Amino acid sequence: MTTANTTRTTEQLVSERYRADLDSPVADGTETIDLQLAHRSVREFLPGEISDAQLRLIVAAAQSGSVSSNLQTWSIIAIRDEARKRRVSEAIGGRSYVEHAAVFLVWVADYHRAVQIAQQRGSEVETVKYLENTLVSFVDAGISGQNALLAAESLGLGGVFVGSIRNNPPGVVEELGLPEHVFPIVGLAIGVPDPDEAASTKPRLPQSAVLHEETYDADAWSDASAEYETRLADYFANYDKPDYSWARTLERRIGNVKGLYGRERMRDWLGEQGLTSQ
Amino acid sequence: MTTANTTRTTEQLVSERYRADLDSPVADGTETIDLQLAHRSVREFLPGEISDAQLRLIVAAAQSGSVSSNLQTWSIIAIRDEARKRRVSEAIGGRSYVEHAAVFLVWVADYHRAVQIAQQRGSEVETVKYLENTLVSFVDAGISGQNALLAAESLGLGGVFVGSIRNNPPGVVEELGLPEHVFPIVGLAIGVPDPDEAASTKPRLPQSAVLHEETYDADAWSDASAEYETRLADYFANYDKPDYSWARTLERRIGNVKGLYGRERMRDWLGEQGLTSQ
Repeated sequence: MTTANTTRTTEQLVSERYRADLDSPVADGTETIDLQLAHRSVREFLPGEISDAQLRLIVAAAQSGSVSSNLQTWSIIAIRDEARKRRVSEAIGGRSYVEHAAVFLVWVADYHRAVQIAQQRGSEVETVKYLENTLVSFVDAGISGQNALLAAESLGLGGVFVGSIRNNPPGVVEELGLPEHVFPIVGLAIGVPDPDEAASTKPRLPQSAVLHEETYDADAWSDASAEYETRLADYFANYDKPDYSWARTLERRIGNVKGLYGRERMRDWLGEQGLTSQ
Repeated sequence: MTTANTTRTTEQLVSERYRADLDSPVADGTETIDLQLAHRSVREFLPGEISDAQLRLIVAAAQSGSVSSNLQTWSIIAIRDEARKRRVSEAIGGRSYVEHAAVFLVWVADYHRAVQIAQQRGSEVETVKYLENTLVSFVDAGISGQNALLAAESLGLGGVFVGSIRNNPPGVVEELGLPEHVFPIVGLAIGVPDPDEAASTKPRLPQSAVLHEETYDADAWSDASAEYETRLADYFANYDKPDYSWARTLERRIGNVKGLYGRERMRDWLGEQGLTSQ
Protein backbone atom coordinates (compact mmCIF):
# COMPACT_ATOMS: atom_id res chain seq x y z
CA MET A 1 0.00 0.00 0.00
CA THR A 2 0.98 3.64 -0.23
CA THR A 3 0.12 6.24 2.37
CA ALA A 4 -0.07 9.95 2.86
CA ASN A 5 3.37 9.84 4.47
CA THR A 6 5.19 8.48 1.48
CA THR A 7 4.74 7.63 -2.12
CA ARG A 8 6.70 4.43 -1.68
CA THR A 9 5.13 0.99 -1.29
CA THR A 10 5.72 -1.14 1.80
CA GLU A 11 7.95 -3.43 -0.26
CA GLN A 12 10.05 -0.47 -1.44
CA LEU A 13 10.36 0.82 2.13
CA VAL A 14 11.59 -2.59 3.29
CA SER A 15 14.13 -2.75 0.45
CA GLU A 16 15.41 0.72 1.38
CA ARG A 17 15.74 -0.31 5.00
CA TYR A 18 18.00 -3.24 4.11
CA ARG A 19 19.50 -1.57 1.04
CA ALA A 20 18.85 -4.85 -0.74
CA ASP A 21 16.19 -6.51 -2.77
CA LEU A 22 14.20 -8.96 -0.71
CA ASP A 23 14.72 -12.70 -1.06
CA SER A 24 11.12 -13.35 -0.11
CA PRO A 25 7.90 -11.34 0.04
CA VAL A 26 6.59 -9.36 2.98
CA ALA A 27 2.92 -9.06 3.94
CA ASP A 28 0.84 -6.05 2.92
CA GLY A 29 1.67 -3.11 5.16
CA THR A 30 -0.42 -0.61 7.06
CA GLU A 31 -0.15 3.14 7.48
CA THR A 32 1.51 2.57 10.88
CA ILE A 33 4.01 0.02 9.55
CA ASP A 34 4.93 2.27 6.61
CA LEU A 35 5.56 5.08 9.09
CA GLN A 36 7.81 2.79 11.14
CA LEU A 37 9.71 1.59 8.08
CA ALA A 38 10.28 5.17 6.87
CA HIS A 39 11.77 6.33 10.19
CA ARG A 40 14.93 8.36 10.18
CA SER A 41 16.45 10.25 13.07
CA VAL A 42 16.05 14.01 12.65
CA ARG A 43 18.93 16.10 13.99
CA GLU A 44 18.24 19.39 12.21
CA PHE A 45 15.14 21.34 13.13
CA LEU A 46 13.37 24.39 11.75
CA PRO A 47 12.10 26.98 14.21
CA GLY A 48 8.63 26.02 15.41
CA GLU A 49 6.79 25.18 18.59
CA ILE A 50 5.18 22.00 19.81
CA SER A 51 1.88 22.91 21.45
CA ASP A 52 0.89 21.73 24.92
CA ALA A 53 -1.98 19.84 23.28
CA GLN A 54 0.48 17.98 21.04
CA LEU A 55 2.83 17.23 23.93
CA ARG A 56 -0.02 15.87 26.06
CA LEU A 57 -1.10 13.61 23.20
CA ILE A 58 2.47 12.37 22.65
CA VAL A 59 2.83 11.62 26.37
CA ALA A 60 -0.55 9.82 26.40
CA ALA A 61 0.75 7.64 23.55
CA ALA A 62 3.96 7.02 25.51
CA GLN A 63 2.03 5.98 28.63
CA SER A 64 -0.25 3.71 26.58
CA GLY A 65 2.61 1.33 25.82
CA SER A 66 3.06 -1.84 27.84
CA VAL A 67 4.48 -1.49 31.34
CA SER A 68 6.18 -4.24 33.31
CA SER A 69 3.76 -5.36 36.06
CA ASN A 70 2.16 -1.90 35.70
CA LEU A 71 4.89 -0.55 38.00
CA GLN A 72 5.32 2.64 35.89
CA THR A 73 8.93 3.24 36.82
CA TRP A 74 9.75 6.12 34.49
CA SER A 75 9.04 9.83 34.21
CA ILE A 76 9.73 12.49 31.60
CA ILE A 77 11.26 15.92 32.12
CA ALA A 78 10.14 18.24 29.27
CA ILE A 79 12.62 21.04 28.65
CA ARG A 80 11.68 24.02 26.49
CA ASP A 81 13.68 26.77 28.19
CA GLU A 82 16.44 27.84 25.79
CA ALA A 83 19.06 28.39 28.47
CA ARG A 84 18.38 25.03 30.10
CA LYS A 85 18.55 23.18 26.75
CA ARG A 86 21.92 24.84 26.17
CA ARG A 87 23.22 23.91 29.61
CA VAL A 88 22.09 20.28 29.21
CA SER A 89 23.70 20.14 25.78
CA GLU A 90 26.96 21.46 27.20
CA ALA A 91 26.82 18.99 30.11
CA ILE A 92 26.68 16.02 27.73
CA GLY A 93 29.37 17.14 25.31
CA GLY A 94 27.53 19.56 23.00
CA ARG A 95 24.55 18.42 20.94
CA SER A 96 23.08 21.03 18.56
CA TYR A 97 19.85 19.01 18.18
CA VAL A 98 19.22 19.31 21.91
CA GLU A 99 19.60 23.08 21.70
CA HIS A 100 17.45 23.46 18.56
CA ALA A 101 14.68 21.00 19.41
CA ALA A 102 11.26 22.50 20.14
CA VAL A 103 11.20 20.32 23.23
CA PHE A 104 13.83 18.06 24.75
CA LEU A 105 12.30 15.17 26.66
CA VAL A 106 14.44 13.29 29.18
CA TRP A 107 13.25 9.84 30.24
CA VAL A 108 14.33 9.01 33.77
CA ALA A 109 14.17 5.80 35.75
CA ASP A 110 11.82 6.84 38.54
CA TYR A 111 11.66 4.85 41.78
CA HIS A 112 11.14 8.01 43.85
CA ARG A 113 7.36 7.59 43.54
CA ALA A 114 7.42 3.94 44.54
CA VAL A 115 9.76 4.57 47.47
CA GLN A 116 7.60 7.41 48.81
CA ILE A 117 4.45 5.30 48.52
CA ALA A 118 6.01 2.26 50.15
CA GLN A 119 7.40 4.34 53.00
CA GLN A 120 4.03 6.02 53.47
CA ARG A 121 2.65 2.53 54.08
CA GLY A 122 5.38 1.88 56.63
CA SER A 123 7.30 -0.51 54.39
CA GLU A 124 11.03 -0.99 53.94
CA VAL A 125 12.43 -0.49 50.44
CA GLU A 126 15.00 -3.26 50.35
CA THR A 127 15.05 -4.07 46.65
CA VAL A 128 15.01 -0.72 44.89
CA LYS A 129 18.79 -1.02 44.67
CA TYR A 130 18.78 -4.30 42.73
CA LEU A 131 19.87 -4.28 39.09
CA GLU A 132 16.61 -5.93 37.96
CA ASN A 133 14.63 -2.83 38.89
CA THR A 134 16.93 -0.57 36.88
CA LEU A 135 16.67 -2.92 33.89
CA VAL A 136 12.85 -2.83 34.04
CA SER A 137 12.87 0.95 33.83
CA PHE A 138 15.30 0.91 30.88
CA VAL A 139 13.17 -1.54 28.84
CA ASP A 140 9.99 0.37 29.65
CA ALA A 141 11.65 3.68 28.73
CA GLY A 142 12.45 2.19 25.33
CA ILE A 143 8.86 1.03 24.84
CA SER A 144 7.34 4.36 25.85
CA GLY A 145 10.01 6.44 24.14
CA GLN A 146 9.41 4.71 20.82
CA ASN A 147 5.66 5.27 21.15
CA ALA A 148 6.39 8.96 21.76
CA LEU A 149 8.70 9.32 18.78
CA LEU A 150 6.37 7.46 16.40
CA ALA A 151 3.41 9.53 17.63
CA ALA A 152 5.42 12.70 16.94
CA GLU A 153 6.38 11.41 13.49
CA SER A 154 2.73 10.68 12.69
CA LEU A 155 2.00 14.35 13.52
CA GLY A 156 4.61 15.47 10.97
CA LEU A 157 7.27 16.16 13.58
CA GLY A 158 10.65 14.45 13.83
CA GLY A 159 13.22 13.62 16.45
CA VAL A 160 16.22 11.71 17.66
CA PHE A 161 16.99 9.66 20.74
CA VAL A 162 19.87 11.10 22.73
CA GLY A 163 21.83 8.38 24.52
CA SER A 164 24.58 10.87 25.28
CA ILE A 165 22.41 12.00 28.18
CA ARG A 166 24.33 9.17 29.88
CA ASN A 167 27.70 10.81 29.17
CA ASN A 168 27.27 12.84 32.34
CA PRO A 169 24.48 11.61 34.63
CA PRO A 170 25.70 13.66 37.62
CA GLY A 171 25.49 16.85 35.55
CA VAL A 172 21.98 15.95 34.34
CA VAL A 173 20.92 15.03 37.88
CA GLU A 174 22.00 18.45 39.08
CA GLU A 175 20.51 20.46 36.19
CA LEU A 176 17.12 18.69 36.34
CA GLY A 177 16.98 18.39 40.13
CA LEU A 178 16.64 14.60 40.13
CA PRO A 179 16.23 13.21 43.65
CA GLU A 180 17.51 9.89 45.00
CA HIS A 181 16.18 6.85 43.05
CA VAL A 182 15.78 8.85 39.82
CA PHE A 183 18.30 8.44 37.00
CA PRO A 184 18.56 9.69 33.38
CA ILE A 185 18.01 6.90 30.81
CA VAL A 186 17.69 8.52 27.39
CA GLY A 187 16.68 11.84 25.86
CA LEU A 188 14.37 12.52 22.92
CA ALA A 189 14.77 15.77 20.97
CA ILE A 190 11.58 16.61 19.05
CA GLY A 191 10.87 19.41 16.62
CA VAL A 192 9.94 20.43 13.10
CA PRO A 193 12.22 18.54 10.68
CA ASP A 194 14.45 20.52 8.34
CA PRO A 195 13.72 18.83 4.99
CA ASP A 196 17.19 19.83 3.77
CA GLU A 197 19.00 17.69 6.35
CA ALA A 198 21.45 15.37 4.61
CA ALA A 199 20.16 12.00 5.80
CA SER A 200 17.96 9.16 4.64
CA THR A 201 16.91 5.66 5.67
CA LYS A 202 19.82 4.10 7.59
CA PRO A 203 20.37 0.53 6.44
CA ARG A 204 20.15 -2.24 9.02
CA LEU A 205 21.69 -5.70 9.35
CA PRO A 206 20.07 -8.34 7.13
CA GLN A 207 17.27 -10.18 8.93
CA SER A 208 19.36 -13.34 8.73
CA ALA A 209 21.66 -11.82 11.36
CA VAL A 210 19.01 -10.84 13.89
CA LEU A 211 16.10 -13.27 13.41
CA HIS A 212 16.84 -16.77 14.66
CA GLU A 213 14.42 -19.67 14.18
CA GLU A 214 13.72 -21.77 17.28
CA THR A 215 17.26 -21.55 18.71
CA TYR A 216 20.18 -19.16 18.43
CA ASP A 217 22.36 -19.66 15.35
CA ALA A 218 25.88 -18.76 16.48
CA ASP A 219 27.16 -18.58 12.88
CA ALA A 220 24.42 -16.31 11.51
CA TRP A 221 26.49 -13.15 12.08
CA SER A 222 29.25 -14.05 9.64
CA ASP A 223 27.85 -13.74 6.10
CA ALA A 224 25.26 -11.19 7.18
CA SER A 225 27.83 -8.88 8.76
CA ALA A 226 30.08 -9.02 5.69
CA GLU A 227 27.14 -8.05 3.43
CA TYR A 228 26.17 -5.29 5.82
CA GLU A 229 29.68 -3.86 5.98
CA THR A 230 29.45 -3.19 2.23
CA ARG A 231 25.88 -1.86 2.24
CA LEU A 232 26.52 0.56 5.09
CA ALA A 233 29.76 1.78 3.52
CA ASP A 234 27.75 2.50 0.33
CA TYR A 235 25.27 4.50 2.39
CA PHE A 236 27.94 6.60 4.10
CA ALA A 237 29.77 7.20 0.82
CA ASN A 238 26.75 9.37 -0.09
CA TYR A 239 27.41 11.50 3.00
CA ASP A 240 31.10 12.21 2.51
CA LYS A 241 32.26 9.35 4.72
CA PRO A 242 33.84 7.02 2.16
CA ASP A 243 35.95 5.25 4.81
CA TYR A 244 33.13 4.32 7.17
CA SER A 245 33.33 0.80 8.57
CA TRP A 246 30.68 -0.77 10.80
CA ALA A 247 33.14 -3.40 12.00
CA ARG A 248 35.52 -0.66 13.12
CA THR A 249 32.67 1.13 14.92
CA LEU A 250 31.94 -2.05 16.90
CA GLU A 251 35.61 -2.63 17.58
CA ARG A 252 36.07 0.88 18.98
CA ARG A 253 33.07 0.52 21.23
CA ILE A 254 33.80 -2.84 22.81
CA GLY A 255 37.54 -3.09 22.28
CA ASN A 256 38.83 -0.52 24.69
CA VAL A 257 37.46 1.39 27.63
CA LYS A 258 38.00 4.64 25.71
CA GLY A 259 35.08 3.59 23.49
CA LEU A 260 32.68 4.07 26.41
CA TYR A 261 33.41 7.82 26.66
CA GLY A 262 33.29 7.74 30.45
CA ARG A 263 30.26 5.48 30.67
CA GLU A 264 32.44 2.80 32.25
CA ARG A 265 31.40 4.58 35.46
CA MET A 266 27.68 3.82 34.92
CA ARG A 267 27.44 1.48 37.90
CA ASP A 268 28.95 4.08 40.23
CA TRP A 269 26.68 6.80 38.86
CA LEU A 270 23.61 4.63 39.41
CA GLY A 271 24.86 3.83 42.90
CA GLU A 272 25.11 7.54 43.74
CA GLN A 273 21.35 7.76 43.02
CA GLY A 274 20.61 4.74 45.21
CA LEU A 275 20.17 2.28 42.33
CA THR A 276 21.96 -0.86 41.11
CA SER A 277 24.36 -1.32 43.97
CA GLN A 278 23.28 -4.99 43.99
CA MET B 1 -10.67 11.59 14.35
CA THR B 2 -12.01 8.05 14.17
CA THR B 3 -10.26 5.19 12.41
CA ALA B 4 -10.91 1.72 11.10
CA ASN B 5 -9.47 0.32 14.33
CA THR B 6 -11.97 1.90 16.63
CA THR B 7 -15.14 3.88 16.65
CA ARG B 8 -13.85 6.04 19.46
CA THR B 9 -12.38 9.51 19.01
CA THR B 10 -8.83 10.34 20.05
CA GLU B 11 -10.20 12.35 22.96
CA GLN B 12 -12.31 9.39 24.12
CA LEU B 13 -9.31 7.07 23.86
CA VAL B 14 -7.23 9.42 26.00
CA SER B 15 -10.01 9.65 28.61
CA GLU B 16 -10.24 5.86 28.73
CA ARG B 17 -6.48 5.59 29.17
CA TYR B 18 -6.55 7.82 32.25
CA ARG B 19 -10.06 6.79 33.34
CA ALA B 20 -10.71 10.47 33.80
CA ASP B 21 -12.04 13.42 31.89
CA LEU B 22 -9.25 15.60 30.64
CA ASP B 23 -8.46 18.92 32.28
CA SER B 24 -7.19 20.32 29.00
CA PRO B 25 -7.52 19.44 25.32
CA VAL B 26 -5.25 17.15 23.31
CA ALA B 27 -4.28 17.72 19.67
CA ASP B 28 -6.08 15.94 16.84
CA GLY B 29 -4.87 12.36 16.62
CA THR B 30 -3.71 10.15 13.78
CA GLU B 31 -4.45 6.54 12.89
CA THR B 32 -1.12 5.54 14.46
CA ILE B 33 -1.73 7.48 17.68
CA ASP B 34 -5.25 6.05 18.02
CA LEU B 35 -3.78 2.57 17.65
CA GLN B 36 -1.22 3.35 20.37
CA LEU B 37 -3.86 4.78 22.70
CA ALA B 38 -6.12 1.74 22.21
CA HIS B 39 -3.37 -0.77 23.12
CA ARG B 40 -4.16 -3.56 25.53
CA SER B 41 -2.03 -6.61 26.25
CA VAL B 42 -3.56 -9.76 24.74
CA ARG B 43 -3.04 -12.91 26.79
CA GLU B 44 -5.71 -15.15 25.23
CA PHE B 45 -5.28 -16.26 21.65
CA LEU B 46 -7.45 -18.05 19.13
CA PRO B 47 -5.83 -20.75 17.00
CA GLY B 48 -4.24 -19.18 13.92
CA GLU B 49 -0.88 -18.83 12.27
CA ILE B 50 1.31 -15.84 11.62
CA SER B 51 2.75 -16.15 8.12
CA ASP B 52 6.45 -15.84 7.37
CA ALA B 53 5.61 -12.77 5.28
CA GLN B 54 3.92 -11.16 8.31
CA LEU B 55 6.80 -12.08 10.63
CA ARG B 56 9.36 -10.62 8.21
CA LEU B 57 7.39 -7.38 8.03
CA ILE B 58 7.07 -7.19 11.83
CA VAL B 59 10.83 -7.74 12.20
CA ALA B 60 11.55 -5.09 9.52
CA ALA B 61 9.44 -2.65 11.56
CA ALA B 62 11.36 -3.66 14.70
CA GLN B 63 14.72 -3.08 13.02
CA SER B 64 13.56 0.28 11.64
CA GLY B 65 13.41 1.80 15.12
CA SER B 66 16.29 3.91 16.40
CA VAL B 67 19.46 2.11 17.47
CA SER B 68 22.10 3.48 19.83
CA SER B 69 25.16 4.39 17.70
CA ASN B 70 23.84 1.86 15.14
CA LEU B 71 25.50 -0.89 17.24
CA GLN B 72 22.50 -3.24 16.78
CA THR B 73 23.03 -5.17 20.00
CA TRP B 74 19.90 -7.31 20.04
CA SER B 75 18.55 -10.37 18.24
CA ILE B 76 15.23 -12.20 18.24
CA ILE B 77 14.61 -15.92 18.63
CA ALA B 78 11.26 -16.82 17.01
CA ILE B 79 9.70 -19.91 18.56
CA ARG B 80 6.78 -21.67 16.88
CA ASP B 81 7.48 -25.26 17.86
CA GLU B 82 4.73 -26.35 20.27
CA ALA B 83 6.99 -28.47 22.47
CA ARG B 84 9.60 -25.69 22.77
CA LYS B 85 6.97 -23.06 23.64
CA ARG B 86 5.76 -25.41 26.37
CA ARG B 87 9.26 -26.01 27.72
CA VAL B 88 10.03 -22.27 27.76
CA SER B 89 6.75 -21.59 29.51
CA GLU B 90 7.55 -24.21 32.14
CA ALA B 91 11.07 -22.81 32.59
CA ILE B 92 9.71 -19.35 33.49
CA GLY B 93 6.94 -20.45 35.84
CA GLY B 94 4.10 -21.38 33.46
CA ARG B 95 2.60 -18.83 31.09
CA SER B 96 -0.37 -20.00 29.01
CA TYR B 97 0.03 -17.09 26.58
CA VAL B 98 3.52 -18.30 25.69
CA GLU B 99 2.14 -21.76 24.93
CA HIS B 100 -0.87 -20.51 22.95
CA ALA B 101 0.83 -17.70 20.99
CA ALA B 102 1.22 -18.24 17.25
CA VAL B 103 4.82 -17.19 17.69
CA PHE B 104 6.82 -16.41 20.79
CA LEU B 105 9.60 -13.89 20.12
CA VAL B 106 12.46 -13.62 22.60
CA TRP B 107 14.56 -10.44 22.47
CA VAL B 108 18.13 -11.10 23.55
CA ALA B 109 21.01 -8.75 24.27
CA ASP B 110 23.46 -9.82 21.57
CA TYR B 111 27.15 -8.96 21.85
CA HIS B 112 28.19 -12.28 20.30
CA ARG B 113 28.18 -10.67 16.85
CA ALA B 114 30.25 -7.67 17.95
CA VAL B 115 32.75 -9.85 19.83
CA GLN B 116 33.26 -12.16 16.85
CA ILE B 117 33.75 -9.21 14.51
CA ALA B 118 36.18 -7.43 16.83
CA GLN B 119 38.19 -10.60 17.39
CA GLN B 120 38.27 -11.25 13.64
CA ARG B 121 39.96 -7.86 13.36
CA GLY B 122 42.50 -8.86 16.01
CA SER B 123 41.00 -6.61 18.67
CA GLU B 124 40.53 -7.17 22.39
CA VAL B 125 36.97 -6.98 23.75
CA GLU B 126 37.61 -5.22 27.04
CA THR B 127 34.34 -3.38 27.51
CA VAL B 128 31.63 -5.87 26.56
CA LYS B 129 31.36 -6.69 30.26
CA TYR B 130 30.52 -3.13 31.34
CA LEU B 131 26.99 -2.38 32.57
CA GLU B 132 26.55 0.43 30.02
CA ASN B 133 26.59 -2.04 27.14
CA THR B 134 23.89 -4.17 28.76
CA LEU B 135 21.77 -1.07 29.37
CA VAL B 136 22.06 -0.04 25.70
CA SER B 137 20.70 -3.39 24.59
CA PHE B 138 17.81 -3.19 27.07
CA VAL B 139 16.69 0.26 25.88
CA ASP B 140 17.02 -0.73 22.24
CA ALA B 141 15.08 -3.95 22.86
CA GLY B 142 12.26 -1.81 24.26
CA ILE B 143 12.30 0.47 21.21
CA SER B 144 12.31 -2.38 18.70
CA GLY B 145 9.93 -4.56 20.70
CA GLN B 146 7.33 -1.80 20.83
CA ASN B 147 7.65 -1.26 17.08
CA ALA B 148 7.08 -5.01 16.61
CA LEU B 149 4.02 -5.13 18.86
CA LEU B 150 2.43 -2.03 17.33
CA ALA B 151 3.11 -3.38 13.82
CA ALA B 152 1.41 -6.64 14.82
CA GLU B 153 -1.54 -4.72 16.29
CA SER B 154 -1.90 -2.72 13.08
CA LEU B 155 -2.21 -6.06 11.23
CA GLY B 156 -5.09 -7.09 13.51
CA LEU B 157 -2.94 -9.32 15.70
CA GLY B 158 -2.33 -8.87 19.42
CA GLY B 159 0.30 -9.69 21.98
CA VAL B 160 1.90 -9.25 25.36
CA PHE B 161 5.43 -8.55 26.55
CA VAL B 162 6.75 -11.33 28.75
CA GLY B 163 9.19 -10.02 31.35
CA SER B 164 9.02 -13.33 33.18
CA ILE B 165 11.56 -14.57 30.62
CA ARG B 166 13.94 -13.10 33.23
CA ASN B 167 12.61 -15.40 35.96
CA ASN B 168 15.04 -18.06 34.78
CA PRO B 169 17.71 -16.79 32.38
CA PRO B 170 19.89 -19.92 32.78
CA GLY B 171 16.94 -22.11 31.71
CA VAL B 172 16.22 -19.88 28.71
CA VAL B 173 19.92 -19.78 27.79
CA GLU B 174 19.99 -23.56 27.73
CA GLU B 175 16.70 -24.06 25.85
CA LEU B 176 17.52 -21.48 23.15
CA GLY B 177 21.23 -22.31 22.90
CA LEU B 178 22.39 -18.78 23.74
CA PRO B 179 26.19 -18.46 23.58
CA GLU B 180 28.42 -16.26 25.74
CA HIS B 181 27.54 -12.51 25.49
CA VAL B 182 23.89 -13.23 24.67
CA PHE B 183 21.20 -12.78 27.35
CA PRO B 184 17.37 -12.89 27.39
CA ILE B 185 15.80 -9.43 27.85
CA VAL B 186 12.07 -9.75 27.23
CA GLY B 187 9.65 -11.99 25.35
CA LEU B 188 6.75 -11.01 23.10
CA ALA B 189 3.89 -13.47 22.59
CA ILE B 190 1.94 -12.68 19.41
CA GLY B 191 -1.18 -14.26 17.99
CA VAL B 192 -4.80 -13.84 16.99
CA PRO B 193 -6.64 -12.08 19.85
CA ASP B 194 -9.56 -13.86 21.49
CA PRO B 195 -12.21 -11.11 21.47
CA ASP B 196 -13.83 -12.67 24.55
CA GLU B 197 -10.80 -12.07 26.78
CA ALA B 198 -11.86 -10.18 29.89
CA ALA B 199 -9.65 -7.12 29.61
CA SER B 200 -9.80 -3.53 28.44
CA THR B 201 -7.72 -0.35 28.45
CA LYS B 202 -5.54 -0.41 31.58
CA PRO B 203 -5.58 3.01 33.26
CA ARG B 204 -2.27 4.79 33.75
CA LEU B 205 -0.99 7.35 36.23
CA PRO B 206 -2.22 10.90 35.62
CA GLN B 207 0.17 12.86 33.42
CA SER B 208 0.84 15.16 36.36
CA ALA B 209 2.79 12.29 37.96
CA VAL B 210 5.01 11.43 35.01
CA LEU B 211 5.42 14.65 33.00
CA HIS B 212 7.63 17.22 34.71
CA GLU B 213 8.18 20.72 33.30
CA GLU B 214 11.81 21.88 33.11
CA THR B 215 12.92 20.18 36.33
CA TYR B 216 11.79 17.21 38.41
CA ASP B 217 8.92 17.94 40.79
CA ALA B 218 9.57 15.72 43.80
CA ASP B 219 6.03 16.25 45.16
CA ALA B 220 4.16 15.44 41.94
CA TRP B 221 3.66 11.79 42.93
CA SER B 222 1.49 12.50 45.95
CA ASP B 223 -1.91 13.71 44.70
CA ALA B 224 -1.54 11.88 41.40
CA SER B 225 -0.87 8.53 43.07
CA ALA B 226 -3.83 8.92 45.41
CA GLU B 227 -6.14 9.60 42.45
CA TYR B 228 -4.66 6.69 40.56
CA GLU B 229 -5.10 4.27 43.46
CA THR B 230 -8.86 4.87 43.23
CA ARG B 231 -9.09 4.74 39.45
CA LEU B 232 -7.14 1.51 39.17
CA ALA B 233 -9.15 -0.11 41.96
CA ASP B 234 -12.31 0.81 40.00
CA TYR B 235 -10.82 -0.86 36.93
CA PHE B 236 -9.96 -4.08 38.75
CA ALA B 237 -13.35 -4.20 40.48
CA ASN B 238 -14.74 -4.97 37.00
CA TYR B 239 -12.47 -8.03 36.82
CA ASP B 240 -13.30 -9.66 40.14
CA LYS B 241 -10.38 -8.10 41.98
CA PRO B 242 -12.19 -5.70 44.33
CA ASP B 243 -9.23 -5.54 46.74
CA TYR B 244 -6.56 -4.53 44.20
CA SER B 245 -4.20 -1.82 45.40
CA TRP B 246 -1.50 -0.26 43.23
CA ALA B 247 0.35 0.99 46.30
CA ARG B 248 0.47 -2.54 47.69
CA THR B 249 1.78 -3.84 44.34
CA LEU B 250 4.66 -1.35 44.49
CA GLU B 251 5.33 -2.13 48.13
CA ARG B 252 5.56 -5.87 47.44
CA ARG B 253 7.94 -5.32 44.57
CA ILE B 254 10.44 -2.98 46.20
CA GLY B 255 9.83 -3.73 49.86
CA ASN B 256 11.28 -7.18 50.19
CA VAL B 257 13.57 -9.38 48.16
CA LYS B 258 10.73 -11.90 47.78
CA GLY B 259 9.08 -9.39 45.44
CA LEU B 260 11.83 -9.98 42.88
CA TYR B 261 10.89 -13.66 42.41
CA GLY B 262 14.51 -14.71 42.13
CA ARG B 263 15.55 -11.81 39.94
CA GLU B 264 17.77 -10.52 42.73
CA ARG B 265 20.33 -12.80 41.04
CA MET B 266 20.22 -10.80 37.75
CA ARG B 267 23.77 -9.53 38.08
CA ASP B 268 25.14 -13.04 38.62
CA TRP B 269 23.09 -14.39 35.70
CA LEU B 270 24.42 -11.66 33.41
CA GLY B 271 27.93 -12.38 34.65
CA GLU B 272 27.58 -16.06 33.73
CA GLN B 273 27.01 -14.90 30.14
CA GLY B 274 30.05 -12.61 30.21
CA LEU B 275 28.07 -9.38 30.70
CA THR B 276 27.77 -6.71 33.41
CA SER B 277 30.54 -7.91 35.69
CA GLN B 278 31.71 -4.26 35.77
